[in-house]
Amino acid sequence: MIRIAIAGYGNLGRGVECAVRENADMELVGVFTRRPPESVAVKTEGVGVYPLDRVSEFRDMIDVMVICGGSATDLPELTPMLAESFNVIDSFDTHANIPAHFDAVDAAAKRGGKVAMISVGWDPGMFSVMRAYAASILPTGKSYTFWGRGVSQGHSDAIRRIPGVVDARQYTVPAQSAVERVRAGENPELTTREKHTRECFVVAEAGADLAAIENAIKTMPNYFDEYDTTVNFITLDELRREHGGLPHGGSVIHSGSTAGGRSLHTIEYKLTLDSNPEFTGSVLTAYARAVYRMAKRGETGCKTVFDVPPADISPYSTDYLREHML
Amino acid sequence: MIRIAIAGYGNLGRGVECAVRENADMELVGVFTRRPPESVAVKTEGVGVYPLDRVSEFRDMIDVMVICGGSATDLPELTPMLAESFNVIDSFDTHANIPAHFDAVDAAAKRGGKVAMISVGWDPGMFSVMRAYAASILPTGKSYTFWGRGVSQGHSDAIRRIPGVVDARQYTVPAQSAVERVRAGENPELTTREKHTRECFVVAEAGADLAAIENAIKTMPNYFDEYDTTVNFITLDELRREHGGLPHGGSVIHSGSTAGGRSLHTIEYKLTLDSNPEFTGSVLTAYARAVYRMAKRGETGCKTVFDVPPADISPYSTDYLREHML
Repeated sequence: MIRIAIAGYGNLGRGVECAVRENADMELVGVFTRRPPESVAVKTEGVGVYPLDRVSEFRDMIDVMVICGGSATDLPELTPMLAESFNVIDSFDTHANIPAHFDAVDAAAKRGGKVAMISVGWDPGMFSVMRAYAASILPTGKSYTFWGRGVSQGHSDAIRRIPGVVDARQYTVPAQSAVERVRAGENPELTTREKHTRECFVVAEAGADLAAIENAIKTMPNYFDEYDTTVNFITLDELRREHGGLPHGGSVIHSGSTAGGRSLHTIEYKLTLDSNPEFTGSVLTAYARAVYRMAKRGETGCKTVFDVPPADISPYSTDYLREHML
Repeated sequence: MIRIAIAGYGNLGRGVECAVRENADMELVGVFTRRPPESVAVKTEGVGVYPLDRVSEFRDMIDVMVICGGSATDLPELTPMLAESFNVIDSFDTHANIPAHFDAVDAAAKRGGKVAMISVGWDPGMFSVMRAYAASILPTGKSYTFWGRGVSQGHSDAIRRIPGVVDARQYTVPAQSAVERVRAGENPELTTREKHTRECFVVAEAGADLAAIENAIKTMPNYFDEYDTTVNFITLDELRREHGGLPHGGSVIHSGSTAGGRSLHTIEYKLTLDSNPEFTGSVLTAYARAVYRMAKRGETGCKTVFDVPPADISPYSTDYLREHML
């Protein structure tokens, strides 16, 4: 059995817990949190909740630590810290800061003789793998990534910070016309506005200035100003009833040519997910198996999904894979 | 530069030649054939054509030999033979015989201290990779593979062997209703007949018994008897004008659940290809890069796509991949 621990028990931590239960070769051995442990109710029977600052006492009881924190402040601190003492995996997703995060985690993991893996999930993660495969197979070509339709937690949070807003849910929606042009192999130049639209469902305080809220959303720099955004005011009941889940998805579409441009080929990888954190947790859990195996083989340092052969995340032997999946 | 040679110069060999030209780190150094070399016109300037039985003279001039032959008789003989003296790669696609082919090639490659890779293309190949990834991420789930719409060369050949047939083209067509049920996460049990239909375009000799030909096609064991098949008689001109290409494609769709079945997720990988042999050649060429790198690292023996990390088929460094594709 591969002994998994979870550091951080929010939506993603609960998603990893869900995923571990689907894998017969793994067991959850503990949850570590910065909150008071008695305030955290873990779903898996018999699993203890411990303060994160006591984690070093558990060094010999954990094969892989899955770190479930935010990329802004949690992971840049936690992953290098934990990588010195544990084999770790995270879902760091601030694309621009990946090289710096990699270097910090790599140094820590090498100091501790451990294996660390960063930026595992669906994007970065499976979408990254698909971009790399497609660009290798069809180098004369171009990849496009579309996200949605799905809830962006970052954008939902940004709306919640506007005065007069009680709660909000933001959906990122790929522009179907852009998707169709890419699928057709047009290789178009697309602006941010042409690729996605944003749909907001907002619960406002009684008596709030709705026009001001709508304007604050639509003009918000980085989050909304470069997009066509629609704002719908709804009741808290409606929000809870119709927007309670965290669905997401998206696609990587690569079209490329051979024979000097005479033949066109399109590769599309598409995800449709009922629960973003449960799927991300499932990807992290599969790659935790690779971390475990790499550590067993004596490898050390920081890895990404690019370094992992498919066989390493599979519960099956390579004999079985060749016989049944090749 | 990675020095590539091609053994066998049919549709697939020409597809590999096309693909090598799209890769700046590779050069084609020779084509080996069982036909009279003077009868083979290679498209790349300056590339020599040599008799296959003189291949051993070229041991030091070739980094990877791409073997482009049929799976029925060519590859079971050629791949083990060449794997003793060269790093090789093939597209062996008789699923049931993969374990035996693997063992023969593995033994030969280990005797010669070489790296061999078998069953590389899109199915087996990229579709195999996608089945393995999906089953690892969502173990509580099921994968479905659909082929087409595209030309099956094996089925076209089978029709050509019927008396009275001048030429023929057979398209394999996925049943849209089955695809939709799988996409919706129904996990249906599907019969062979429910998954695909077969469309045939046949040129008959003047005065041939068309009803007899149609009956011979529709009742042909293994090839057509388990499918709903339509037969269209057309002229040779129409065949050449409208069915001259070798388009193909298909999809692997995996749907799986988390949270004890409460959340459903669907992963779909879809290929739409203008030219089956040029795309298959492109996959072989990308994986030839991995063969080259594995050999440089001192690895030996037979590998499959399951053993290859995405970084190994990429022309980019892992630094570049992390910065630009993660």
